[in-house]
Amino acid sequence: MAIRYPNGKKYSEKRILKTKKNVNKKDSRYSNRGMSLEEEINESNQYYIAHGLANIHKKPTPIQIVNVHYPSRSAAVITEAYFQKASTTDYNGVYKGKYIDFEAKETKNKTSFPLKNFHDHQINHMIDVIKHGGICFSILRFSATGETFLLKAEYILSWYDQNEDRKSIPKSYIEEHGSLLKQGFLPSIDYLKAVDSMIDCQ
Amino acid sequence: MAIRYPNGKKYSEKRILKTKKNVNKKDSRYSNRGMSLEEEINESNQYYIAHGLANIHKKPTPIQIVNVHYPSRSAAVITEAYFQKASTTDYNGVYKGKYIDFEAKETKNKTSFPLKNFHDHQINHMIDVIKHGGICFSILRFSATGETFLLKAEYILSWYDQNEDRKSIPKSYIEEHGSLLKQGFLPSIDYLKAVDSMIDCQ
Repeated sequence: MAIRYPNGKKYSEKRILKTKKNVNKKDSRYSNRGMSLEEEINESNQYYIAHGLANIHKKPTPIQIVNVHYPSRSAAVITEAYFQKASTTDYNGVYKGKYIDFEAKETKNKTSFPLKNFHDHQINHMIDVIKHGGICFSILRFSATGETFLLKAEYILSWYDQNEDRKSIPKSYIEEHGSLLKQGFLPSIDYLKAVDSMIDCQ
Repeated sequence: MAIRYPNGKKYSEKRILKTKKNVNKKDSRYSNRGMSLEEEINESNQYYIAHGLANIHKKPTPIQIVNVHYPSRSAAVITEAYFQKASTTDYNGVYKGKYIDFEAKETKNKTSFPLKNFHDHQINHMIDVIKHGGICFSILRFSATGETFLLKAEYILSWYDQNEDRKSIPKSYIEEHGSLLKQGFLPSIDYLKAVDSMIDCQ
Protein backbone atom coordinates (compact mmCIF):
# COMPACT_ATOMS: atom_id res chain seq x y z
CA MET A 1 0.00 0.00 0.00
CA ALA A 2 1.37 3.43 -0.88
CA ILE A 3 2.33 5.78 1.89
CA ARG A 4 0.08 8.80 1.82
CA TYR A 5 0.84 12.08 3.46
CA PRO A 6 -1.44 14.63 5.12
CA ASN A 7 -2.12 16.40 1.85
CA GLY A 8 -3.22 13.13 0.24
CA LYS A 9 -0.22 13.03 -2.06
CA LYS A 10 2.35 10.32 -2.34
CA TYR A 11 5.80 11.24 -1.18
CA SER A 12 8.44 11.32 -3.88
CA GLU A 13 12.02 11.77 -2.74
CA LYS A 14 13.02 12.76 -6.26
CA ARG A 15 10.46 15.50 -6.23
CA ILE A 16 11.77 16.93 -2.96
CA LEU A 17 15.36 16.75 -4.08
CA LYS A 18 14.47 18.38 -7.36
CA THR A 19 12.22 21.17 -6.27
CA LYS A 20 13.96 21.82 -2.95
CA LYS A 21 10.62 22.78 -1.48
CA ASN A 22 8.38 21.52 1.27
CA VAL A 23 6.63 18.29 0.28
CA ASN A 24 3.32 19.72 1.40
CA LYS A 25 3.31 22.14 -1.51
CA LYS A 26 0.32 21.51 -3.72
CA ASP A 27 0.78 20.69 -7.38
CA SER A 28 -1.58 19.76 -10.16
CA ARG A 29 0.10 16.63 -11.42
CA TYR A 30 -2.80 14.39 -10.52
CA SER A 31 -5.22 16.31 -12.66
CA ASN A 32 -3.10 16.13 -15.79
CA ARG A 33 -1.76 12.65 -15.00
CA GLY A 34 1.76 13.87 -15.64
CA MET A 35 3.08 11.37 -13.10
CA SER A 36 6.69 10.50 -12.50
CA LEU A 37 7.88 6.98 -13.35
CA GLU A 38 7.88 6.15 -9.64
CA GLU A 39 4.29 7.29 -9.23
CA GLU A 40 3.19 5.31 -12.28
CA ILE A 41 4.83 2.15 -10.94
CA ASN A 42 3.35 2.68 -7.47
CA GLU A 43 -0.08 3.10 -9.03
CA SER A 44 0.41 -0.03 -11.16
CA ASN A 45 1.45 -1.97 -8.06
CA GLN A 46 -1.68 -0.80 -6.23
CA TYR A 47 -3.73 -1.95 -9.22
CA TYR A 48 -2.00 -5.36 -9.19
CA ILE A 49 -2.65 -5.77 -5.44
CA ALA A 50 -6.27 -4.64 -5.68
CA HIS A 51 -6.91 -7.08 -8.55
CA GLY A 52 -5.13 -9.99 -6.87
CA LEU A 53 -2.45 -10.19 -9.59
CA ALA A 54 0.74 -9.67 -7.58
CA ASN A 55 2.02 -8.26 -4.31
CA ILE A 56 4.86 -5.88 -5.13
CA HIS A 57 5.81 -2.78 -3.13
CA LYS A 58 8.30 0.05 -3.22
CA LYS A 59 10.55 -0.14 -0.19
CA PRO A 60 10.51 2.91 2.07
CA THR A 61 13.27 5.44 1.40
CA PRO A 62 16.22 4.64 3.66
CA ILE A 63 16.71 7.46 6.15
CA GLN A 64 19.53 7.94 8.63
CA ILE A 65 17.95 9.21 11.84
CA VAL A 66 20.16 11.36 14.04
CA ASN A 67 17.81 13.08 16.48
CA VAL A 68 14.33 12.36 17.76
CA HIS A 69 12.30 14.64 19.99
CA TYR A 70 9.59 13.26 22.28
CA PRO A 71 7.06 15.96 23.13
CA SER A 72 4.76 14.99 25.98
CA ARG A 73 1.35 13.73 24.82
CA SER A 74 2.39 13.76 21.13
CA ALA A 75 4.03 11.45 18.64
CA ALA A 76 7.82 11.30 18.46
CA VAL A 77 9.23 13.89 16.02
CA ILE A 78 12.37 13.19 14.02
CA THR A 79 14.19 16.53 14.06
CA GLU A 80 17.37 15.59 12.21
CA ALA A 81 17.73 12.92 9.56
CA TYR A 82 19.42 12.39 6.19
CA PHE A 83 18.61 10.56 2.96
CA GLN A 84 20.73 7.47 2.36
CA LYS A 85 21.75 5.55 -0.74
CA ALA A 86 19.79 2.33 -1.07
CA SER A 87 21.90 -0.84 -0.86
CA THR A 88 19.26 -2.89 -2.68
CA THR A 89 16.83 -2.15 -5.49
CA ASP A 90 13.67 -0.13 -4.88
CA TYR A 91 10.89 -2.62 -5.55
CA ASN A 92 10.30 -6.22 -4.61
CA GLY A 93 7.52 -8.69 -4.02
CA VAL A 94 5.86 -11.88 -5.19
CA TYR A 95 4.17 -12.83 -8.47
CA LYS A 96 3.07 -16.37 -9.35
CA GLY A 97 5.18 -17.69 -6.48
CA LYS A 98 8.31 -16.03 -7.88
CA TYR A 99 10.47 -13.45 -6.14
CA ILE A 100 10.38 -10.21 -8.16
CA ASP A 101 13.04 -7.52 -7.70
CA PHE A 102 13.58 -4.39 -9.74
CA GLU A 103 14.75 -0.83 -9.98
CA ALA A 104 13.15 2.01 -11.95
CA LYS A 105 15.23 4.77 -13.50
CA GLU A 106 14.73 7.71 -15.84
CA THR A 107 17.12 9.58 -18.07
CA LYS A 108 16.87 12.74 -20.15
CA ASN A 109 19.51 11.33 -22.54
CA LYS A 110 18.16 10.42 -25.95
CA THR A 111 20.51 7.75 -27.25
CA SER A 112 21.86 5.96 -24.17
CA PHE A 113 21.17 5.17 -20.51
CA PRO A 114 23.90 6.32 -18.06
CA LEU A 115 25.33 3.45 -16.00
CA LYS A 116 26.18 5.87 -13.18
CA ASN A 117 22.48 5.58 -12.32
CA PHE A 118 23.29 2.12 -10.93
CA HIS A 119 25.32 2.06 -7.71
CA ASP A 120 27.78 -0.78 -7.12
CA HIS A 121 25.64 -2.02 -4.23
CA GLN A 122 22.68 -2.34 -6.57
CA ILE A 123 24.72 -4.19 -9.20
CA ASN A 124 25.92 -6.66 -6.54
CA HIS A 125 22.36 -7.02 -5.29
CA MET A 126 21.14 -7.89 -8.81
CA ILE A 127 23.84 -10.54 -9.20
CA ASP A 128 22.86 -12.06 -5.86
CA VAL A 129 19.12 -12.08 -6.58
CA ILE A 130 19.68 -13.90 -9.88
CA LYS A 131 21.95 -16.41 -8.11
CA HIS A 132 19.12 -17.24 -5.73
CA GLY A 133 16.62 -17.78 -8.54
CA GLY A 134 14.77 -14.46 -8.29
CA ILE A 135 13.46 -12.50 -11.27
CA CYS A 136 15.41 -9.28 -11.55
CA PHE A 137 15.13 -6.42 -14.03
CA SER A 138 15.09 -2.66 -14.47
CA ILE A 139 12.39 -0.41 -15.79
CA LEU A 140 14.15 2.27 -17.83
CA ARG A 141 12.46 5.40 -19.13
CA PHE A 142 13.75 7.78 -21.76
CA SER A 143 11.87 10.88 -20.66
CA ALA A 144 12.52 12.78 -23.91
CA THR A 145 10.43 10.31 -25.93
CA GLY A 146 8.40 8.86 -23.03
CA GLU A 147 9.47 5.32 -24.00
CA THR A 148 9.71 2.86 -21.11
CA PHE A 149 11.57 -0.46 -21.37
CA LEU A 150 11.87 -3.51 -19.16
CA LEU A 151 15.42 -4.84 -19.37
CA LYS A 152 16.37 -8.10 -17.65
CA ALA A 153 19.17 -7.62 -15.10
CA GLU A 154 21.18 -10.28 -16.95
CA TYR A 155 21.53 -7.89 -19.92
CA ILE A 156 22.51 -4.97 -17.68
CA LEU A 157 25.15 -7.12 -15.95
CA SER A 158 26.41 -8.52 -19.23
CA TRP A 159 26.87 -4.99 -20.64
CA TYR A 160 28.46 -3.88 -17.37
CA ASP A 161 30.94 -6.78 -17.46
CA GLN A 162 31.89 -6.46 -21.10
CA ASN A 163 32.21 -2.70 -21.18
CA GLU A 164 33.85 -1.60 -17.99
CA ASP A 165 35.11 1.63 -19.49
CA ARG A 166 31.75 2.59 -20.98
CA LYS A 167 29.63 5.05 -19.09
CA SER A 168 26.23 4.14 -20.50
CA ILE A 169 24.13 1.50 -22.26
CA PRO A 170 23.20 2.47 -25.85
CA LYS A 171 19.48 2.77 -26.48
CA SER A 172 19.85 0.37 -29.42
CA TYR A 173 21.04 -2.36 -26.97
CA ILE A 174 18.01 -1.70 -24.73
CA GLU A 175 15.68 -1.83 -27.77
CA GLU A 176 17.24 -5.09 -28.91
CA HIS A 177 17.20 -6.94 -25.56
CA GLY A 178 14.42 -5.19 -23.62
CA SER A 179 10.65 -5.09 -23.91
CA LEU A 180 8.94 -1.80 -24.73
CA LEU A 181 6.21 -1.32 -22.10
CA LYS A 182 2.85 -0.01 -23.19
CA GLN A 183 1.51 2.84 -21.09
CA GLY A 184 -2.16 2.94 -20.35
CA PHE A 185 -4.67 4.21 -17.84
CA LEU A 186 -4.95 1.35 -15.34
CA PRO A 187 -2.41 0.05 -14.77
CA SER A 188 -0.23 2.95 -15.95
CA ILE A 189 2.61 0.57 -16.84
CA ASP A 190 1.58 -3.05 -17.27
CA TYR A 191 5.05 -4.47 -16.68
CA LEU A 192 3.78 -7.89 -15.49
CA LYS A 193 3.12 -8.86 -19.12
CA ALA A 194 6.84 -8.58 -19.82
CA VAL A 195 7.57 -10.52 -16.60
CA ASP A 196 5.31 -13.33 -17.86
CA SER A 197 7.57 -13.86 -20.83
CA MET A 198 10.59 -13.92 -18.48
CA ILE A 199 8.90 -16.66 -16.41
CA ASP A 200 8.02 -18.63 -19.56
CA CYS A 201 11.68 -18.57 -20.60
CA GLN A 202 12.97 -19.76 -17.20
CA MET B 1 23.27 -4.95 3.77
CA ALA B 2 22.48 -3.35 7.12
CA ILE B 3 22.24 0.38 7.37
CA ARG B 4 25.02 1.67 9.57
CA TYR B 5 25.06 5.03 11.25
CA PRO B 6 27.94 7.39 11.98
CA ASN B 7 28.67 5.75 15.30
CA GLY B 8 28.92 2.33 13.62
CA LYS B 9 25.74 1.03 15.29
CA LYS B 10 22.67 -0.28 13.60
CA TYR B 11 19.60 1.87 13.99
CA SER B 12 16.82 0.32 16.00
CA GLU B 13 13.53 2.16 16.05
CA LYS B 14 12.42 0.14 19.06
CA ARG B 15 15.47 1.24 20.97
CA ILE B 16 14.77 4.92 20.27
CA LEU B 17 11.12 4.61 21.18
CA LYS B 18 11.98 2.75 24.35
CA THR B 19 14.83 4.79 25.69
CA LYS B 20 13.58 8.13 24.41
CA LYS B 21 17.17 9.18 23.92
CA ASN B 22 19.36 10.22 21.04
CA VAL B 23 20.34 7.24 18.85
CA ASN B 24 23.95 8.33 18.97
CA LYS B 25 24.18 7.44 22.62
CA LYS B 26 26.75 4.73 23.15
CA ASP B 27 25.78 1.46 24.75
CA SER B 28 27.62 -1.73 25.48
CA ARG B 29 25.25 -4.25 23.92
CA TYR B 30 27.71 -5.28 21.24
CA SER B 31 30.31 -6.34 23.75
CA ASN B 32 27.96 -8.57 25.72
CA ARG B 33 26.04 -9.76 22.64
CA GLY B 34 22.79 -8.93 24.34
CA MET B 35 21.25 -8.11 20.98
CA SER B 36 17.60 -7.42 20.29
CA LEU B 37 15.64 -9.87 18.13
CA GLU B 38 15.83 -7.40 15.25
CA GLU B 39 19.61 -7.14 15.55
CA GLU B 40 19.97 -10.93 15.69
CA ILE B 41 17.87 -11.34 12.55
CA ASN B 42 19.78 -8.59 10.73
CA GLU B 43 23.04 -10.29 11.65
CA SER B 44 21.72 -13.67 10.50
CA ASN B 45 20.62 -12.11 7.20
CA GLN B 46 24.09 -10.63 6.71
CA TYR B 47 25.55 -14.08 7.38
CA TYR B 48 23.20 -15.67 4.83
CA ILE B 49 24.12 -13.05 2.20
CA ALA B 50 27.87 -13.32 2.87
CA HIS B 51 27.69 -17.14 2.59
CA GLY B 52 25.53 -17.11 -0.54
CA LEU B 53 22.62 -18.84 1.21
CA ALA B 54 19.81 -16.31 0.74
CA ASN B 55 19.18 -12.64 0.02
CA ILE B 56 16.82 -11.35 2.69
CA HIS B 57 16.72 -7.79 4.05
CA LYS B 58 14.85 -5.74 6.60
CA LYS B 59 12.91 -2.99 4.87
CA PRO B 60 13.79 0.56 5.93
CA THR B 61 11.53 2.03 8.62
CA PRO B 62 8.70 3.94 6.92
CA ILE B 63 9.03 7.63 7.71
CA GLN B 64 6.61 10.45 6.87
CA ILE B 65 8.72 13.39 5.79
CA VAL B 66 7.20 16.82 6.37
CA ASN B 67 10.07 19.28 6.06
CA VAL B 68 13.46 19.20 4.36
CA HIS B 69 16.10 21.88 4.63
CA TYR B 70 18.72 22.37 1.89
CA PRO B 71 21.80 24.08 3.27
CA SER B 72 24.13 25.33 0.56
CA ARG B 73 27.09 23.02 -0.11
CA SER B 74 25.70 20.33 2.26
CA ALA B 75 23.42 17.33 2.10
CA ALA B 76 19.66 17.84 2.47
CA VAL B 77 18.57 17.69 6.11
CA ILE B 78 15.17 16.32 7.08
CA THR B 79 14.05 18.65 9.87
CA GLU B 80 10.57 17.26 10.55
CA ALA B 81 9.43 13.68 10.07
CA TYR B 82 7.36 11.05 11.86
CA PHE B 83 7.47 7.27 12.29
CA GLN B 84 4.74 5.44 10.40
CA LYS B 85 3.06 2.09 10.86
CA ALA B 86 4.29 -0.41 8.29
CA SER B 87 1.63 -1.65 5.87
CA THR B 88 3.61 -4.79 5.08
CA THR B 89 5.86 -7.09 7.08
CA ASP B 90 9.41 -6.08 8.00
CA TYR B 91 11.56 -8.60 6.14
CA ASN B 92 11.49 -10.04 2.65
CA GLY B 93 13.78 -11.55 0.08
CA VAL B 94 14.61 -14.64 -1.93
CA TYR B 95 15.72 -18.14 -0.89
CA LYS B 96 16.02 -21.09 -3.28
CA GLY B 97 13.98 -19.12 -5.84
CA LYS B 98 11.12 -18.66 -3.37
CA TYR B 99 9.72 -15.37 -2.14
CA ILE B 100 10.24 -15.14 1.64
CA ASP B 101 8.26 -12.69 3.76
CA PHE B 102 8.14 -12.39 7.53
CA GLU B 103 7.69 -10.30 10.61
CA ALA B 104 9.63 -10.57 13.89
CA LYS B 105 8.00 -9.78 17.21
CA GLU B 106 8.86 -10.05 20.88
CA THR B 107 6.68 -10.29 23.96
CA LYS B 108 7.35 -10.16 27.68
CA ASN B 109 4.26 -12.33 28.27
CA LYS B 110 5.04 -15.83 29.46
CA THR B 111 2.08 -17.92 28.37
CA SER B 112 0.72 -16.23 25.24
CA PHE B 113 1.61 -13.92 22.35
CA PRO B 114 -0.57 -10.77 22.06
CA LEU B 115 -2.33 -10.50 18.70
CA LYS B 116 -2.41 -6.70 19.02
CA ASN B 117 1.24 -6.93 17.88
CA PHE B 118 -0.12 -7.65 14.39
CA HIS B 119 -1.78 -4.72 12.62
CA ASP B 120 -4.69 -5.39 10.27
CA HIS B 121 -2.56 -4.24 7.33
CA GLN B 122 0.03 -6.88 8.18
CA ILE B 123 -2.61 -9.61 8.50
CA ASN B 124 -4.00 -8.67 5.06
CA HIS B 125 -0.48 -8.60 3.67
CA MET B 126 0.19 -12.14 4.96
CA ILE B 127 -3.04 -13.41 3.36
CA ASP B 128 -2.04 -11.84 0.07
CA VAL B 129 1.53 -13.18 0.10
CA ILE B 130 0.27 -16.74 0.69
CA LYS B 131 -2.27 -16.32 -2.12
CA HIS B 132 0.57 -15.47 -4.52
CA GLY B 133 2.61 -18.52 -3.50
CA GLY B 134 5.11 -16.78 -1.21
CA ILE B 135 6.47 -18.30 2.00
CA CYS B 136 5.19 -16.27 4.92
CA PHE B 137 5.79 -16.65 8.64
CA SER B 138 6.55 -14.85 11.90
CA ILE B 139 9.51 -15.15 14.19
CA LEU B 140 8.12 -14.87 17.72
CA ARG B 141 10.25 -14.44 20.80
CA PHE B 142 9.22 -14.91 24.41
CA SER B 143 11.80 -12.65 26.02
CA ALA B 144 11.21 -14.00 29.54
CA THR B 145 12.53 -17.44 28.56
CA GLY B 146 14.52 -16.39 25.48
CA GLU B 147 12.67 -18.96 23.35
CA THR B 148 12.23 -18.02 19.70
CA PHE B 149 9.74 -19.78 17.41
CA LEU B 150 9.05 -19.69 13.70
CA LEU B 151 5.30 -19.93 13.13
CA LYS B 152 3.87 -20.23 9.62
CA ALA B 153 1.51 -17.37 8.75
CA GLU B 154 -1.18 -19.96 7.96
CA TYR B 155 -1.33 -20.87 11.67
CA ILE B 156 -1.47 -17.23 12.75
CA LEU B 157 -4.28 -16.55 10.27
CA SER B 158 -6.13 -19.69 11.27
CA TRP B 159 -6.00 -18.70 14.95
CA TYR B 160 -7.00 -15.14 14.03
CA ASP B 161 -10.02 -16.39 12.04
CA GLN B 162 -11.24 -18.90 14.57
CA ASN B 163 -10.78 -16.76 17.65
CA GLU B 164 -11.86 -13.26 16.79
CA ASP B 165 -12.58 -12.37 20.39
CA ARG B 166 -9.26 -13.67 21.67
CA LYS B 167 -6.52 -11.19 22.28
CA SER B 168 -3.53 -13.50 22.05
CA ILE B 169 -2.18 -16.84 20.77
CA PRO B 170 -1.45 -19.32 23.61
CA LYS B 171 2.16 -20.38 23.85
CA SER B 172 1.02 -24.03 23.73
CA TYR B 173 -0.44 -23.40 20.24
CA ILE B 174 2.87 -21.86 19.10
CA GLU B 175 4.80 -24.81 20.59
CA GLU B 176 2.51 -27.28 18.84
CA HIS B 177 2.51 -25.70 15.36
CA GLY B 178 5.76 -23.70 15.29
CA SER B 179 9.44 -24.64 15.18
CA LEU B 180 11.67 -23.74 18.10
CA LEU B 181 14.70 -21.94 16.63
CA LYS B 182 18.11 -22.75 17.98
CA GLN B 183 20.21 -19.72 18.84
CA GLY B 184 23.89 -19.79 18.09
CA PHE B 185 26.82 -17.57 17.36
CA LEU B 186 26.78 -17.27 13.56
CA PRO B 187 24.10 -17.06 12.44
CA SER B 188 22.45 -15.88 15.66
CA ILE B 189 19.12 -17.38 14.59
CA ASP B 190 19.34 -20.02 11.88
CA TYR B 191 15.73 -19.67 10.75
CA LEU B 192 16.40 -20.94 7.20
CA LYS B 193 16.49 -24.51 8.53
CA ALA B 194 12.85 -24.16 9.55
CA VAL B 195 12.08 -22.57 6.17
CA ASP B 196 13.58 -25.64 4.46
CA SER B 197 10.97 -27.86 6.05
CA MET B 198 8.26 -25.42 4.89
CA ILE B 199 9.57 -25.67 1.31
CA ASP B 200 9.69 -29.49 1.54
CA CYS B 201 6.03 -29.53 2.59
CA GLN B 202 4.87 -27.25 -0.26
